[in-house]
Amino acid sequence: MPHDGPKPVNHFYTAYTPPLIDGDFEGKHIISVDQFARHDLEILFDAARSIRRRISQQDRGLKEICAGKVMASLFFEASTRTDMSFQAAMRRLGGDVISASNGVQFSSMYKGENIADTIRAAGCYADAIVMRHDQEGSTYEAAFYLDRLNRQIKNRAILISGGDGVGEHPTQALLDLFTIFDRKQGIDHLTLTMVGDLKHGRTVHSLAKLIACYRPAGVTLCLVSPESLRMPAPIVALLRAAGLSVIETTDLMQVLPDSDVMYWTRVQEERFSQPDEYERIKDGFVMLPAVLARAPARMILMHPLPRKHEMGTQADHDILDEDPRAIYFEQMENGMFVRMALLAKVLRGAYV
Amino acid sequence: MPHDGPKPVNHFYTAYTPPLIDGDFEGKHIISVDQFARHDLEILFDAARSIRRRISQQDRGLKEICAGKVMASLFFEASTRTDMSFQAAMRRLGGDVISASNGVQFSSMYKGENIADTIRAAGCYADAIVMRHDQEGSTYEAAFYLDRLNRQIKNRAILISGGDGVGEHPTQALLDLFTIFDRKQGIDHLTLTMVGDLKHGRTVHSLAKLIACYRPAGVTLCLVSPESLRMPAPIVALLRAAGLSVIETTDLMQVLPDSDVMYWTRVQEERFSQPDEYERIKDGFVMLPAVLARAPARMILMHPLPRKHEMGTQADHDILDEDPRAIYFEQMENGMFVRMALLAKVLRGAYV
Amino acid sequence: MPHDGPKPVNHFYTAYTPPLIDGDFEGKHIISVDQFARHDLEILFDAARSIRRRISQQDRGLKEICAGKVMASLFFEASTRTDMSFQAAMRRLGGDVISASNGVQFSSMYKGENIADTIRAAGCYADAIVMRHDQEGSTYEAAFYLDRLNRQIKNRAILISGGDGVGEHPTQALLDLFTIFDRKQGIDHLTLTMVGDLKHGRTVHSLAKLIACYRPAGVTLCLVSPESLRMPAPIVALLRAAGLSVIETTDLMQVLPDSDVMYWTRVQEERFSQPDEYERIKDGFVMLPAVLARAPARMILMHPLPRKHEMGTQADHDILDEDPRAIYFEQMENGMFVRMALLAKVLRGAYV
Repeated sequence: MPHDGPKPVNHFYTAYTPPLIDGDFEGKHIISVDQFARHDLEILFDAARSIRRRISQQDRGLKEICAGKVMASLFFEASTRTDMSFQAAMRRLGGDVISASNGVQFSSMYKGENIADTIRAAGCYADAIVMRHDQEGSTYEAAFYLDRLNRQIKNRAILISGGDGVGEHPTQALLDLFTIFDRKQGIDHLTLTMVGDLKHGRTVHSLAKLIACYRPAGVTLCLVSPESLRMPAPIVALLRAAGLSVIETTDLMQVLPDSDVMYWTRVQEERFSQPDEYERIKDGFVMLPAVLARAPARMILMHPLPRKHEMGTQADHDILDEDPRAIYFEQMENGMFVRMALLAKVLRGAYV
Repeated sequence: MPHDGPKPVNHFYTAYTPPLIDGDFEGKHIISVDQFARHDLEILFDAARSIRRRISQQDRGLKEICAGKVMASLFFEASTRTDMSFQAAMRRLGGDVISASNGVQFSSMYKGENIADTIRAAGCYADAIVMRHDQEGSTYEAAFYLDRLNRQIKNRAILISGGDGVGEHPTQALLDLFTIFDRKQGIDHLTLTMVGDLKHGRTVHSLAKLIACYRPAGVTLCLVSPESLRMPAPIVALLRAAGLSVIETTDLMQVLPDSDVMYWTRVQEERFSQPDEYERIKDGFVMLPAVLARAPARMILMHPLPRKHEMGTQADHDILDEDPRAIYFEQMENGMFVRMALLAKVLRGAYV
Repeated sequence: MPHDGPKPVNHFYTAYTPPLIDGDFEGKHIISVDQFARHDLEILFDAARSIRRRISQQDRGLKEICAGKVMASLFFEASTRTDMSFQAAMRRLGGDVISASNGVQFSSMYKGENIADTIRAAGCYADAIVMRHDQEGSTYEAAFYLDRLNRQIKNRAILISGGDGVGEHPTQALLDLFTIFDRKQGIDHLTLTMVGDLKHGRTVHSLAKLIACYRPAGVTLCLVSPESLRMPAPIVALLRAAGLSVIETTDLMQVLPDSDVMYWTRVQEERFSQPDEYERIKDGFVMLPAVLARAPARMILMHPLPRKHEMGTQADHDILDEDPRAIYFEQMENGMFVRMALLAKVLRGAYV
């Protein structure tokens, strides 16, 4: 798959293959949606629903699941949402969290120390490491060196990706798909629409690939983007090979009336070499109350957040947010449940 | 009330009214001293004393009070004292704490994302959010959007102000008043003196307003400041309306011999348009050992800390700190007990 | 002992004397290796081994040891390894950790507030404070003012040094010596070699002094450094007074064949006034696979980490790391066990 991010891809991206889940999460690094098959997703989503129910019942037994376990939070790139979501997930399972108390940017780890040694430092102290880094494939290198370390010391640490540059963001895709499943009682026979910069968007890439992993029946996927920002051809091919109908278009209105799920993302002006091209298309990529008014009542509107101008002004946000179809805050909350399920599964396996 | 801070006041400061406590803390945002009446303060201070006693007895039951609860620490403006005090408070009640592991300044939240969306991200993961921000009224906006969020998702989060610019710092006022109550067995019939820049000082504004909320009997409040930095007239009016005798003066020595409580704060050179005016008055606003020597034996000397030149040099500090009337470290320690009481009350209500 | 770091030594370095352990750790600040005698080290290392065994047995009783205790992490100088190691240690003992959620560098503590007031703020909230600072002797000042505070408020806080500039790093020395004891069943009759910049190296100074404190029998200590970067004469005198044979040399090959323990550190180009002098000697101070190949099979290769060019390239690292004699990751993991033992001892005394 072609990538055109600013940094060269880490060579471990091709040299290291993350393990398939294959029904058993325990002790496995989570760095790619490619590790998941249909059955694995069903296991995970069942666990997430169970955890959500137990939280609403104030079930104190949840705090036993990861008691005695330590998660390290290593965010070399800021992502407060993902970071705080993982922290809250670990805490609510009774586990502990460590991080660089001054921020990893100020550490010797950051200034010059390579990923191989950095990750092994955390691997000496923690049971799970959530890492986010701006280099694509960096999480693969981290997993490779953790495997080496795990053969040498007593402790055994698992890597969980919090996003690696323009590469992958597997837990975002998992929470997105869970939200669709949860709201629509599954995904089969739905019409899903993704809107925005589909060329560079990490979240839409990961979600599309994860849907292909699930191999749903009768799904139509509508891809709405400017012509120059289409979904990469290899992902489209992957989707079609998985049995999905794919519609590519530049015109939202063509697919809006039939959409069960609308996944909205941003188109950034910087992606266009000609400013006037951006000016010409931009209005078609802003979700405004007037646009939502034309969507079907059954449709759910999702967004990975944060949002900027792609949902208009603060006044527009205020109107959209009150629409019951706008479920991006629920989607964000689901992130904690899915990450709790994932941490429980990789750290405690069949226990949950 | 006039404000002349550098940032425009957030319009939610007038558009949103925080709920009165009215004997019941549970589930209520804490953003202003105006929410408190005499009875609420008595409830809170009783709880703080009880918690202090239980800590000294190493009562492990304290760790049950907020077990399973998560507090998010969102300090958009640095205040390590308030921040660490809240963290320690939540931990000692058995609760968990999350924050941006790299510091909120480096997050997408900070760079451009508005308060409305930022606070709702934390609101998806945490039960209580302690927020400090440099814009006056920002905590009101945060509370407004949390109320909206709380209607849309399963989680329910409470906002607690850690200070909003030149606006309010309610927990500082609460710990200050608790310290006076604790040392003087109440506040009725005392002579209290506040010294420093009373025009811009957030802590003296909040404390003065909180004392007015309590409506004590027979209290004289002496306000000592340079002429150009007098307490805002609306606050003086509020104090008088609450039945206090208010004395305004530029001369500490006029009121020192009668003071039961001395609340000391800093006068900053930057507040004076004419440097020579600062030079002319500055010596009257430095608490030195020779000044304390002229204070009555019963007087307690308070300071919100941090301190700089307003208590002289490090050598002066060393002498002042050993004087039994100097209780600013005890006052700081009380901050943890009062914040524990507040967290327990808003998160668990009548339980404590 | 002469020091030539960039900052003047804090005058409390000579004015304050940290307490000897003398068989009883409880409530004592840990700021210098000079506090430890042979018997104290044996107590601590026994506790570290016991804790390591209990972790491997997933003994949940460990979480009782520091339950209800709070550790503050105050790293005014970055050291993510030490920081995370202490955090994980405290958590695995059931204790809680607080820190400046935005990093202590952004706090009012950092900008201008002195050590005396800063440390007393943390001392109001925490039971133990781990402090790292770039000024030699700063930890002595912190301990001095904590002793004062502890007489004035209810809380009682202990200082643990995480390193003070070019001064000391006692817990690094403790984990280094523990690793030697653990791998070699003691230290008597061993030949230990230290390599690198022995003039400025804080870790080699602290380790050498700690070995002298233990007063081992029949130990030879080989000190390999460039001529201009020799171990300070007072430390060499101290070692000889403690009964060790000391060999000083610029040539590693002279002592490599007889070494039981090789402690490797970096020689920095910036330490040489003449660049060509550095060019002339640098190759003798790089640990490469070809060098390790000439070492005895029994030798263990240690390094305090992080490492840079002193172990060659990433490719060299990959080869060295797979050699069973390279135990620096195990050494790093031991850091957590030793810090757990230390926290348990100072906070709970005879309990462990």
